Amino acid sequence: MLTVGVDIGGTKIAAGVVEEDGSLLEHTQHPTDPTDPAAIEAAVTAAVTELRERHEIGAVGVAAAGYVSPLRDAMVFAPNISWRDYPLRDRLATGIDLPIVVENDANAAGWAEFRFGAGEAISSMVMLTVGTGLGGAVIHDGRLLRGAFGAAGEFGHMEMVPNGHYCGCGQEGCWEMYASGRALTRAARAAAVAQPDRIGALVEAAGGPDQAIEGRHVTAAAQAGDPLAKELFAELGGWLGKGIADLVAVVDPELAVVGGGVVDAGDLLMEPARQAFRRHLTARGFRGELRIEVAEMGNEAGIIGAADLARR
Amino acid sequence: MLTVGVDIGGTKIAAGVVEEDGSLLEHTQHPTDPTDPAAIEAAVTAAVTELRERHEIGAVGVAAAGYVSPLRDAMVFAPNISWRDYPLRDRLATGIDLPIVVENDANAAGWAEFRFGAGEAISSMVMLTVGTGLGGAVIHDGRLLRGAFGAAGEFGHMEMVPNGHYCGCGQEGCWEMYASGRALTRAARAAAVAQPDRIGALVEAAGGPDQAIEGRHVTAAAQAGDPLAKELFAELGGWLGKGIADLVAVVDPELAVVGGGVVDAGDLLMEPARQAFRRHLTARGFRGELRIEVAEMGNEAGIIGAADLARR
Amino acid sequence: MLTVGVDIGGTKIAAGVVEEDGSLLEHTQHPTDPTDPAAIEAAVTAAVTELRERHEIGAVGVAAAGYVSPLRDAMVFAPNISWRDYPLRDRLATGIDLPIVVENDANAAGWAEFRFGAGEAISSMVMLTVGTGLGGAVIHDGRLLRGAFGAAGEFGHMEMVPNGHYCGCGQEGCWEMYASGRALTRAARAAAVAQPDRIGALVEAAGGPDQAIEGRHVTAAAQAGDPLAKELFAELGGWLGKGIADLVAVVDPELAVVGGGVVDAGDLLMEPARQAFRRHLTARGFRGELRIEVAEMGNEAGIIGAADLARR
Amino acid sequence: MLTVGVDIGGTKIAAGVVEEDGSLLEHTQHPTDPTDPAAIEAAVTAAVTELRERHEIGAVGVAAAGYVSPLRDAMVFAPNISWRDYPLRDRLATGIDLPIVVENDANAAGWAEFRFGAGEAISSMVMLTVGTGLGGAVIHDGRLLRGAFGAAGEFGHMEMVPNGHYCGCGQEGCWEMYASGRALTRAARAAAVAQPDRIGALVEAAGGPDQAIEGRHVTAAAQAGDPLAKELFAELGGWLGKGIADLVAVVDPELAVVGGGVVDAGDLLMEPARQAFRRHLTARGFRGELRIEVAEMGNEAGIIGAADLARR
Repeated sequence: MLTVGVDIGGTKIAAGVVEEDGSLLEHTQHPTDPTDPAAIEAAVTAAVTELRERHEIGAVGVAAAGYVSPLRDAMVFAPNISWRDYPLRDRLATGIDLPIVVENDANAAGWAEFRFGAGEAISSMVMLTVGTGLGGAVIHDGRLLRGAFGAAGEFGHMEMVPNGHYCGCGQEGCWEMYASGRALTRAARAAAVAQPDRIGALVEAAGGPDQAIEGRHVTAAAQAGDPLAKELFAELGGWLGKGIADLVAVVDPELAVVGGGVVDAGDLLMEPARQAFRRHLTARGFRGELRIEVAEMGNEAGIIGAADLARR
Repeated sequence: MLTVGVDIGGTKIAAGVVEEDGSLLEHTQHPTDPTDPAAIEAAVTAAVTELRERHEIGAVGVAAAGYVSPLRDAMVFAPNISWRDYPLRDRLATGIDLPIVVENDANAAGWAEFRFGAGEAISSMVMLTVGTGLGGAVIHDGRLLRGAFGAAGEFGHMEMVPNGHYCGCGQEGCWEMYASGRALTRAARAAAVAQPDRIGALVEAAGGPDQAIEGRHVTAAAQAGDPLAKELFAELGGWLGKGIADLVAVVDPELAVVGGGVVDAGDLLMEPARQAFRRHLTARGFRGELRIEVAEMGNEAGIIGAADLARR
Repeated sequence: MLTVGVDIGGTKIAAGVVEEDGSLLEHTQHPTDPTDPAAIEAAVTAAVTELRERHEIGAVGVAAAGYVSPLRDAMVFAPNISWRDYPLRDRLATGIDLPIVVENDANAAGWAEFRFGAGEAISSMVMLTVGTGLGGAVIHDGRLLRGAFGAAGEFGHMEMVPNGHYCGCGQEGCWEMYASGRALTRAARAAAVAQPDRIGALVEAAGGPDQAIEGRHVTAAAQAGDPLAKELFAELGGWLGKGIADLVAVVDPELAVVGGGVVDAGDLLMEPARQAFRRHLTARGFRGELRIEVAEMGNEAGIIGAADLARR
Repeated sequence: MLTVGVDIGGTKIAAGVVEEDGSLLEHTQHPTDPTDPAAIEAAVTAAVTELRERHEIGAVGVAAAGYVSPLRDAMVFAPNISWRDYPLRDRLATGIDLPIVVENDANAAGWAEFRFGAGEAISSMVMLTVGTGLGGAVIHDGRLLRGAFGAAGEFGHMEMVPNGHYCGCGQEGCWEMYASGRALTRAARAAAVAQPDRIGALVEAAGGPDQAIEGRHVTAAAQAGDPLAKELFAELGGWLGKGIADLVAVVDPELAVVGGGVVDAGDLLMEPARQAFRRHLTARGFRGELRIEVAEMGNEAGIIGAADLARR
């Protein structure tokens, strides 16, 4: 059975037709306005309708950032779109006469990695998506752990540092504030103030003043060998690995898959993450040891995971 | 089917006959020497043999502190007994001709609470046993989450404070160092040095010098209204609630059950824990909210949980 | 001998004629533009000239935020005005034919408190100015401690929390980020997100959305008894007292004088500060113990202190 | 004028005759019992009497660990000897008919470095003695800053980590718990548990089990190139440099002199300390910058400093 996966982002929706083996047959995308839920629904409906013209589709999986109801039919809360206890499945059902399930986007991406990507051969894993923020998913014994209230895998809001950096959620010290693209950018800009003698390569990469530095400039400078940029990735990797050790204390998975844009830095990020993980793992040497690997499914992970979950 | 549950502690084993509804029909216990694995096995065998004289038993569940192999047949590592990759099931099978499973003790206790105690009506919970140390269990969608390497639910080793108190595990800042009986004792003794003017009631309860103060003295003084003792429980409760908010970010359960000797302090511990949890919960008000409740199964939780898990 | 004190702020200069006993005979102020050093100098010159019309003046003391050279003749660095190794005394000397000294503004205010205010009877004190930021001064054995590079008393940049809140200085966890008007505002706005059920009084005081809350609204709400606002002051006071315990470990003064706009909250701030100080003071009971008092000299402290320092 | 300096330690007193240029003409030492103040006084008297047989002495300076009264005549509190508000000068005066002053031992050592050692050419410095614990002294504008209650320079009890390692003083997170010989030992033993695969060289240096590791073994292993031992010194140096940045925010000295047994590690300690200092210094590049140097006066610093202070 073919299914469609839809990934509702902040500024666009992406949809694709997915086979049972995870192959993406065709995909499409439409720009959307996060302040206009009706327009988002129209865009999703249009995309599904378009794809159904050329494919026999059995079900639709829709992924978005936020908390999903246990029945997978509503968005309880979304950070970017004004959904609050919003019956997304029923709204979409008026335009799409197929079974529809709603999933959290990081859960969908994690599921795609589990079924078809870096986690294909194992039964328990965590996914970390290190993009602008830090999202996650927990898969255990082959099952996606959604949480009693649809909010499992919100790793980014574990507290890493008591009284640490302010997070948009109103708390302090959230992991996301130390291990995300946003964290990388802030750390780079702070370094520009505190260590002006070392900031040359970053300013050049940014082509502008200190505060123009973005995460991608840090990546570029690090890959070109800039010591400060490499240090910034090592610090971010350190926070990543340390937090993964905390996840191990809770769910003890076999594998941590790290995806999201920050992973473009490759081993500049991953090696410090692995090293920090080993340093912080309790009872190391007396237990099986989780591996930390880069995600394999790329930007389509959300579509593919949502489509696959729609079959279940 | 009746089953036997065995709880192997540091200085004794306790065993009991358990019905399918969780009732404990009879129980027995034997002192043991943690440095002598063969004697422990003999004691377990004797206890099971004794109980079988009066009951028809279908299986045996054995619970102990440590990491358990995924096949539930071996102790990978134990903190108190010199078991390392130790084939406990096979060792016991030479004296007991019944199906035997090995389980982690906090997992067994958590399972008992889930099936027959505070978690009876729900499907996802975490258990926290706040005794000398801090143990835990995760139950999700009605299933015990054991971990890929048998070490899920080791909450006590999540890092709460970067560069915080040294833990026996060699790490710093482990949750157990802030939320456990050991933490309570250390905090009380430190207060005896730093706040000598407030320590009277604790010293009196201990009947000796400052360093004689034990957790039970703090409990007694707090229940008698001593301000410092109440403050110490409020601090411990604060750490407990804060960490539960971290657990919610990972597995989002419906309920946290808190057991172990420190819970004797009742609301002096639980109310600060609930308050701290609410203060640290991300997106409060926009999500379903976990409840924090006291365990109901008492000291027999390990026996009952192990016995019940032996049926599965 | 009468002297003139000048306090150069971000948007205005204030100047006054001061007697030897600290009395302010007359004062005046002029708006200024922080981006125009020449205009600032013209304004200072005009103010001094104006005051000399009616008074016999012997010297001029000029206070401003920033690092002052050891010879008290130049601003090495200023946070708000574009002075870098700036020969302020010589620039002013072209229009004012009197002895001129340059002082740091918090040092001037601390000196005024020491000579004529809360510290009048003692010989060693620290001053903390809790305004938008957190400034300070150290006075020991009756002498102002300026620092080898003119930057003593910059308490606001002691690190209170490793990896804590970002500071404008490029560092993390600076004390100023926890104990200042800016900290109060940020904490209130974060509470508005994390504890929306408790934010009513603050929003009402602010007369607008959450993010309109300013420090003065927190003060008003706290004085009217709002629990959240009182809690925010208690937290700020806690950080204040804790940091004062650190200062004691370095310079062991007899008195800490707390000034700046945040002190308007009175005991809502001061009592938690005193309590936290006592909790964090090493060897309490075996040592003389610093007192923490509110400043007495008001907004004119800078003028009066600068004028008095010009005599020395 | 020649003076005698006496350094009262935990298990012995050392005394010496010192010239005005800081030269030590002769010295002697006697074992003592810290639990017997009268015997300590007898030993001091005997040592001074002995030295006076061969030298014309004008005054005696006595240094010991603890808080000294502002009049330099009494020990307010001592950590190792049972002195509480103890009139040490008057007690000694019964046997020694010379002017006597009492000084804190780290202050005496710091003064020796200031007058005759690493700080000879400068006017403002801090001294850090990194021995078993962490002591200090502040010298400003050529004067020793003793504190209103005799407890200035107790740097070891600044709080570095909120809720960090327990200190013997009853507080948590004291700097001494991160930057001292004791900290080094604890960190090494913790590494032995957490990183058993890296501990070989340390265990070999200790010639025994993990818990036999002492600070000197870490020094030896680090100097022989062991990666873990070098890392431990780098961490200790990091905490040292970070805390020095905090001292700069308070007293802004020109120089920090680092002495005590841990300094034997040389650049393995000092380079990380300098690097961390630079990383944590606010407004670096816009201010004069403190140097960090190794002490030059060795174990006799206490004697020499006390003797010199007796002249003043």
